[in-house]
Amino acid sequence: MSNPVLVEVLRGDRLESAHRGAVTVCDATGRALLEIGDVARPVFPRSAVKAIQALPLVESGTADALGFGDKELALACASHRGEARHVELARSMLAGAGLDESALECGSHWPGDHDATVALARSGQLPTALHNNCSGKHSGFLCTCRHMGLAHRGYVAFEHPYQATIREVMESVTDAPHDAENSATDGCSIPTYAVPISNLALGFARMAAGERLPAARAKAAKRLFSACMAEPFFVSGSDAADLSLMQAAPGRIFVKTGAEGVYCAAVPELGLGIALKCDDGAGRAAETMVAAVLARLLKSDEAVSTRLAELARPAITSRKGVPVGKVRPTEALTA
Amino acid sequence: MSNPVLVEVLRGDRLESAHRGAVTVCDATGRALLEIGDVARPVFPRSAVKAIQALPLVESGTADALGFGDKELALACASHRGEARHVELARSMLAGAGLDESALECGSHWPGDHDATVALARSGQLPTALHNNCSGKHSGFLCTCRHMGLAHRGYVAFEHPYQATIREVMESVTDAPHDAENSATDGCSIPTYAVPISNLALGFARMAAGERLPAARAKAAKRLFSACMAEPFFVSGSDAADLSLMQAAPGRIFVKTGAEGVYCAAVPELGLGIALKCDDGAGRAAETMVAAVLARLLKSDEAVSTRLAELARPAITSRKGVPVGKVRPTEALTA
Repeated sequence: MSNPVLVEVLRGDRLESAHRGAVTVCDATGRALLEIGDVARPVFPRSAVKAIQALPLVESGTADALGFGDKELALACASHRGEARHVELARSMLAGAGLDESALECGSHWPGDHDATVALARSGQLPTALHNNCSGKHSGFLCTCRHMGLAHRGYVAFEHPYQATIREVMESVTDAPHDAENSATDGCSIPTYAVPISNLALGFARMAAGERLPAARAKAAKRLFSACMAEPFFVSGSDAADLSLMQAAPGRIFVKTGAEGVYCAAVPELGLGIALKCDDGAGRAAETMVAAVLARLLKSDEAVSTRLAELARPAITSRKGVPVGKVRPTEALTA
Repeated sequence: MSNPVLVEVLRGDRLESAHRGAVTVCDATGRALLEIGDVARPVFPRSAVKAIQALPLVESGTADALGFGDKELALACASHRGEARHVELARSMLAGAGLDESALECGSHWPGDHDATVALARSGQLPTALHNNCSGKHSGFLCTCRHMGLAHRGYVAFEHPYQATIREVMESVTDAPHDAENSATDGCSIPTYAVPISNLALGFARMAAGERLPAARAKAAKRLFSACMAEPFFVSGSDAADLSLMQAAPGRIFVKTGAEGVYCAAVPELGLGIALKCDDGAGRAAETMVAAVLARLLKSDEAVSTRLAELARPAITSRKGVPVGKVRPTEALTA
């Protein structure tokens, strides 16, 4: 594994740190428009595939039965930052299925959003499983289990029938095997499966184009992407890269971060899917990578492309807020 | 720059992420015992050289004049976690020189320690410059300026005479030039200078061995290292890697982290200095690297070496606390 340097971190004008990675962009037939680095090495997509994992929520009729709108569907695909609006919406999704946070098996952690952490501490409370960045996904799982008549206890386990349902969906969308051999456990206790980024990009291209999927699945994919693009705050949160990226081209790009430097994204109008992994797992580098690739794909729209290129080059500031360096994509990404 | 992979991050049994880097260990004459990767590339040491930057505090007589003991000297070399004991000690150091936090030019940020952040939020207060992880270093700077009769305002600027003093010390200890050409601005607003890790290791070896330095400087170095090894909490804080590492071999190893994946360390009994940089800037990888190198250097003491080797292999856990992966050094580091 020796992928090229795709992101540089400068202090003053000098290189301070560098990030390697692999990136691919393809259409729904699997035809690659861009391939950088080793796109065949299996990587754990982690939270970047939540939109695929949310397909059964829609396909099963659960979302309709519970009257879920864009916000709820966006939260089901989210790595949210534990802000009050995220927490309350996850609570309400569970309540619709007659459940509460005690059903969540994702564990708890303090909010990803610093202001939300301070507010929670000031209130004298502790975080619950609703604050877990994955609580929307888990709430969607639980609602679907209830709707399908599955006993939900243990729904996070590889052996639970709902995880088998998710494996089937992930396999059909990405064409990659998902089984015990390539599985490990994600931070929120559900299985995650190592697959090549070429398969991840293929899956997101199919969902974006609505092609090479069963009709009901294509329709569900379109609905989930539309919901996320309409309500990007509920996919992410204040100051999140995913929010800034989706706001840069409203309704035109879907992006989703995953832990350890993974991104999956899609540009429906171009029918393209994008997947990337920063070798070292750095989120800052993955954010620059996806922004730079999107800027390139949307270069025909100068305003949007310029904004995305800016997002690919965040300043590094001192504790007094003075710019002292920057992060930037290398020519391997921009040329 | 294509340094070898020195640290692997596994999820289950599969490689999830990998970190490259360069490491060197040498004695006070510059003779290298270990060289991995490009040890000549200039890197910004950031906070890893605070013990060198603290030499004038001792050499000038300031520390004695103000009655500073091990705790104060340790805090002057620290990247502390903003816990109450750190904050109060920095305040008292400044008070000894007739100053208060308004003299600090490092900027403020919430404590690095999560419990300290929650406690501060619950108290209804906001962080001050005393909570900045560098406040001990800055307090040492300010005390020394006062003792030397220097106007302290603007003490963080490259042009301030105190920064010239620090440059002279850094050059004499490391043999590397420190000037405008290789300088940039650190997060706490003072200059940081890009130098090869071979020079950083040389400097720490000289300080550890007390050799090839003027007698007063060698004595000051010994006093600072002794203080840090006696009071490692004040160099770092609860749950910090530097605390665990120094506690693994009490009084026998000095370690100091720097931002963006740098470590400097020393083993006085062996007269050796260590410096390393993780290419991508990851702290977790730098921690594993320094622990693995120290385990190797101290292998004649099986208990200590075993503990250090454990610290080089931290578990990755789910949000429910279940181990789901681990970080580990590669054979390039351990063989």
